[in-house]
Amino acid sequence: MAKTIIIGSIGLDDVKTPFGDMKAILGGSAVYASYASSFFTNVGIVSIAGEDFPEEYKNLLTNKNIDMSGIEFKGKTFRWSGEYEYDMNEAKTLNTELNSITEFSANLPESYKNAEYILLGNIDPELQLKVIEQLSQPKLIAMDTMNFWIESKKEHLIEVIKKVDLLLINDGEARLLFETVNLLDAGNKALNLGPKYVIIKKGEHGALLFTQTTHFSAPGYPLEVLKDPTGCGDSFAGGLIGWLAKTDDISEPNLRKAIIYGSTIASFNAEDFSLERQKTLNMEEINKRFQEFEKMREF
Amino acid sequence: MAKTIIIGSIGLDDVKTPFGDMKAILGGSAVYASYASSFFTNVGIVSIAGEDFPEEYKNLLTNKNIDMSGIEFKGKTFRWSGEYEYDMNEAKTLNTELNSITEFSANLPESYKNAEYILLGNIDPELQLKVIEQLSQPKLIAMDTMNFWIESKKEHLIEVIKKVDLLLINDGEARLLFETVNLLDAGNKALNLGPKYVIIKKGEHGALLFTQTTHFSAPGYPLEVLKDPTGCGDSFAGGLIGWLAKTDDISEPNLRKAIIYGSTIASFNAEDFSLERQKTLNMEEINKRFQEFEKMREF
Repeated sequence: MAKTIIIGSIGLDDVKTPFGDMKAILGGSAVYASYASSFFTNVGIVSIAGEDFPEEYKNLLTNKNIDMSGIEFKGKTFRWSGEYEYDMNEAKTLNTELNSITEFSANLPESYKNAEYILLGNIDPELQLKVIEQLSQPKLIAMDTMNFWIESKKEHLIEVIKKVDLLLINDGEARLLFETVNLLDAGNKALNLGPKYVIIKKGEHGALLFTQTTHFSAPGYPLEVLKDPTGCGDSFAGGLIGWLAKTDDISEPNLRKAIIYGSTIASFNAEDFSLERQKTLNMEEINKRFQEFEKMREF
Repeated sequence: MAKTIIIGSIGLDDVKTPFGDMKAILGGSAVYASYASSFFTNVGIVSIAGEDFPEEYKNLLTNKNIDMSGIEFKGKTFRWSGEYEYDMNEAKTLNTELNSITEFSANLPESYKNAEYILLGNIDPELQLKVIEQLSQPKLIAMDTMNFWIESKKEHLIEVIKKVDLLLINDGEARLLFETVNLLDAGNKALNLGPKYVIIKKGEHGALLFTQTTHFSAPGYPLEVLKDPTGCGDSFAGGLIGWLAKTDDISEPNLRKAIIYGSTIASFNAEDFSLERQKTLNMEEINKRFQEFEKMREF
């Protein structure tokens, strides 16, 4: 099985939604993405956490065979607190304590350098570039980003986009970065920078995959219960790269399947806070929901 | 072939978008819907227009074999003027002159009363009810509505919903009417009122079909050129009912196909102002785009 690594944040989150008010729960892009990925493949995290990072959360990750040798432990863990309003569309950030994340070096352990499937989660594009430079034989490099980097480090971000195979970006960010309201236009502009694949995430409306010659529209899953959307984008990306690594097939038709597996894990993730739903999730449930995705788009 | 009738407005529109500023162009829900429907079936309009309604526009409709015997001509034609901002998401209404539409009686000609496929376009729910009462053997009654009636005549509107087979409503209106942000919840609440089918339209994000036991997610078509979205919802509804009437099959699987045909016509409609694009549209183009819809959702 191909070696997969995921670069991103590890955090302790305070999250308030209409369904609850949780304190210091496990979060961070690398956590959500690696957990989602672990349903399909062995995965290693590249990140930093504090010395205060709870043993319970470490165990949660190691119990899923997630390789933690790429995690530095220093000072205090990154903290984020956010709130979702009634429509659950977007988190309002209430507070951020960067803590040890400011010291994140993004140095890969030797055992990670020959990784084949790489997810560059949402971190400083300069660190994303640094990770790329350490890789000896990548088969697929995927990257995610966010508004903050588009606004503060656009040039570095463009440089990373030019070096990756797959760009993941949400619709609002795509419009912002490529200065267009038309998502097809944004997708084409992204492809022209170099990536073979561009995926525009649309939250409850699903996701769009663009290549130079094809276009795929993945439906959103209609959730009865949506308790906390935190980490859904990361779970989507993690599930997607996990499926690609498991099958070791980066063809466009298999990427479509990977998008549906990613959407499946993300839809479960939203059903509860933190990793609560993913903790009890099994392959039977995943495959059942994958089949529901198939049925809901047949015509 | 089953007889199809469409109830709605006929208007002369002033429309401004980033792509042009048009005056007194042909519009109205009955016009867009009947034109879209005419690609598949013979259709009759129930509406009112003014004595000032241009001959050129009458000819446009009669050339597509659209039955105009249900149109009254009185006074001045309904006028609407609206503007779309850069994101083209929603029209800002600049001015409305109701003119003769206030005298619309919604009386069906004798030859319409045995219609089998009926689309109650967006008009006063009391008139929609009046139309239903005149029907002798409907096979399928579909209805559309808008915010204005949800806010001003909610009780009448609910009464109409209880009597129809298919409710068409956009996402914002569904959330408003059923007091929920969750579209699955809104769909279920709508179904509980009586309709067998509920379709929630999501603009560029496609449409959702809900029944008591199934769920279908239709993709949006990624348009390169979007000049004027006016009438897209009506074209969608018209294309849909036209396909159902042509095939005389109101099963759920055929309704899925009807939604894609409706989406196809609507996507063409947005490519130019008024009926400009539909005027030159042919079945070969329609079928080609239908196939593109198929390809973009395969996984």
